[in-house]
Amino acid sequence: MSHSIPTWKDVEQAHERISGHVHRTPVHTSSALDEISGAELHFKCENFQKTGSFKFRGATNTVVQLGDKELKHGVGTHSSGNHAAALALAARLQGTEAHIVMPRDSSPIKKRAVEHYDAHITWCEPGLDNREQAFREIEKITGARFVHPSGDFNVICGQGTAAKELLEEVPELDAIIAPVGGGGLASGMAVAGRAMKKDLRIYAAEPQKADDAYRSFKQGFLIPVDRPNTIADGLLTSLSPLTFRIISEYMDDVFTTSEQTIIKAMQLIWERMKLIAEPSAAVALAAVLDHRFVFKGKKVGIILSGGNVDLTKLPFGQQEG
Amino acid sequence: MSHSIPTWKDVEQAHERISGHVHRTPVHTSSALDEISGAELHFKCENFQKTGSFKFRGATNTVVQLGDKELKHGVGTHSSGNHAAALALAARLQGTEAHIVMPRDSSPIKKRAVEHYDAHITWCEPGLDNREQAFREIEKITGARFVHPSGDFNVICGQGTAAKELLEEVPELDAIIAPVGGGGLASGMAVAGRAMKKDLRIYAAEPQKADDAYRSFKQGFLIPVDRPNTIADGLLTSLSPLTFRIISEYMDDVFTTSEQTIIKAMQLIWERMKLIAEPSAAVALAAVLDHRFVFKGKKVGIILSGGNVDLTKLPFGQQEG
Repeated sequence: MSHSIPTWKDVEQAHERISGHVHRTPVHTSSALDEISGAELHFKCENFQKTGSFKFRGATNTVVQLGDKELKHGVGTHSSGNHAAALALAARLQGTEAHIVMPRDSSPIKKRAVEHYDAHITWCEPGLDNREQAFREIEKITGARFVHPSGDFNVICGQGTAAKELLEEVPELDAIIAPVGGGGLASGMAVAGRAMKKDLRIYAAEPQKADDAYRSFKQGFLIPVDRPNTIADGLLTSLSPLTFRIISEYMDDVFTTSEQTIIKAMQLIWERMKLIAEPSAAVALAAVLDHRFVFKGKKVGIILSGGNVDLTKLPFGQQEG
Repeated sequence: MSHSIPTWKDVEQAHERISGHVHRTPVHTSSALDEISGAELHFKCENFQKTGSFKFRGATNTVVQLGDKELKHGVGTHSSGNHAAALALAARLQGTEAHIVMPRDSSPIKKRAVEHYDAHITWCEPGLDNREQAFREIEKITGARFVHPSGDFNVICGQGTAAKELLEEVPELDAIIAPVGGGGLASGMAVAGRAMKKDLRIYAAEPQKADDAYRSFKQGFLIPVDRPNTIADGLLTSLSPLTFRIISEYMDDVFTTSEQTIIKAMQLIWERMKLIAEPSAAVALAAVLDHRFVFKGKKVGIILSGGNVDLTKLPFGQQEG
């Protein structure tokens, strides 16, 4: 695993490599949301991506590069979320095994997704230490290659292809924005965006309640998040050294947003665009709404990162008549 | 208003007339739903249509044909649903007024939609008699032209354009299916489908709990529905004489489906396709699932009729882990 910063050429090569395997997802617009936001919004619908999120791009870009010997041992990760399902399907489609360490308290819907793609699941106690320890044991037994959800060079290049497609389809964008958790999507987007359009404004969006990227970006050094608690369950992880370097170098700014605006943005996407977006995917629109002076009158590309949500636990309350 | 049966030429002319005003909605597929259904499904996404349903096609095809004198008096209808919102926006975009009679017990979300498009709303007591009476009074005062939600010749031709677009995009379809309430969509689809592909199987799907089209089709005469009570709130109305004639002549069969399967189909569309579909829109997939021997191995076009749903009142219960 290289720790150098990916170049535009790396993203281009990733795109060639994965384009037969991933969906080229559509870009949706909404006159209602343009009116509400005061900007012209273009949503890259990665909720329609295989496994329901952009994570399938990075996972595929990793697995398709494995040699025969590596394919024999399989791949693995510890994750309770979209990366686990993405890696499981990418492995199955390339004829190899996926070993996933999941905390026992993972939600039933996420368990089902990973099981559905025939991954080998190892249950562990919650907590990052327990997950890492459990994965090291699996690694010893199987020789499976660990694929980090966001800090892996090839994962970052794969995620960058979502922004590449969006800018190819809407080259007139003034700005582009994606949610940031571990930073794989945000840093891949930053590499692609900076290379494709010199004057493009490149932004990340983060919940106030998990604002490590915001604080790291502003302070200039990596500050891990401490016990984040946000409805945006895909954004609980912290930047890695690699994604922090990329974001520091290429990103114009990081905006935070409140839990209340995240829920409001999610409801707007559901009601007005008729799209299922998970809370993490609504964070970018929420940031646009909470910082509208920045985006007013601009053409803004938003990466709608995923649509995996438990329909029995929705945050929409009773509304006024 | 002509009571003759629309011809293919009428649907073609409607399409030319409205194509600058309506969205040409995308067709989505889902490998997960193909696996579950045993068929190859192609969903025409009218949930992405303006005002969130196919109703905007028929309303537009009516309003754009009005002369100057008629435009001065406006249009109107009595409806608490998607037709009201569609007519309101179609009228606004053509620079005329819409007069909508709504029952006082209409849901807040539907009230808001109609208000949003600047329609003049007259409240009445619930019940068809009260609605008709209230509309006659509005008609006397304003001279507004009544646009029936489903039994109007031009409305039927407009709705038929959804099926026309679907068959243009996926000409290899073996069958096509749409939900049936008043029958505007189903009969427009039947006219288009029969003309475009001789051996196409053309089906309507209906809730068991509002099965007037099923019973009318099987008996050969018009049987209005008696106090229907289904979650598919867009399908509570009965066929009109005109839509019954078209469906009798061109439809191959009408299939009914249970409330339970409607909810299951809706949940599948939300979870697997990441699309917001209203219960009425899920009825066609539900019928495919409940009659799978008919559709097994076939290429099936499904009109996903709309996506207007109250997010605070969803039917999804707790699931097993």
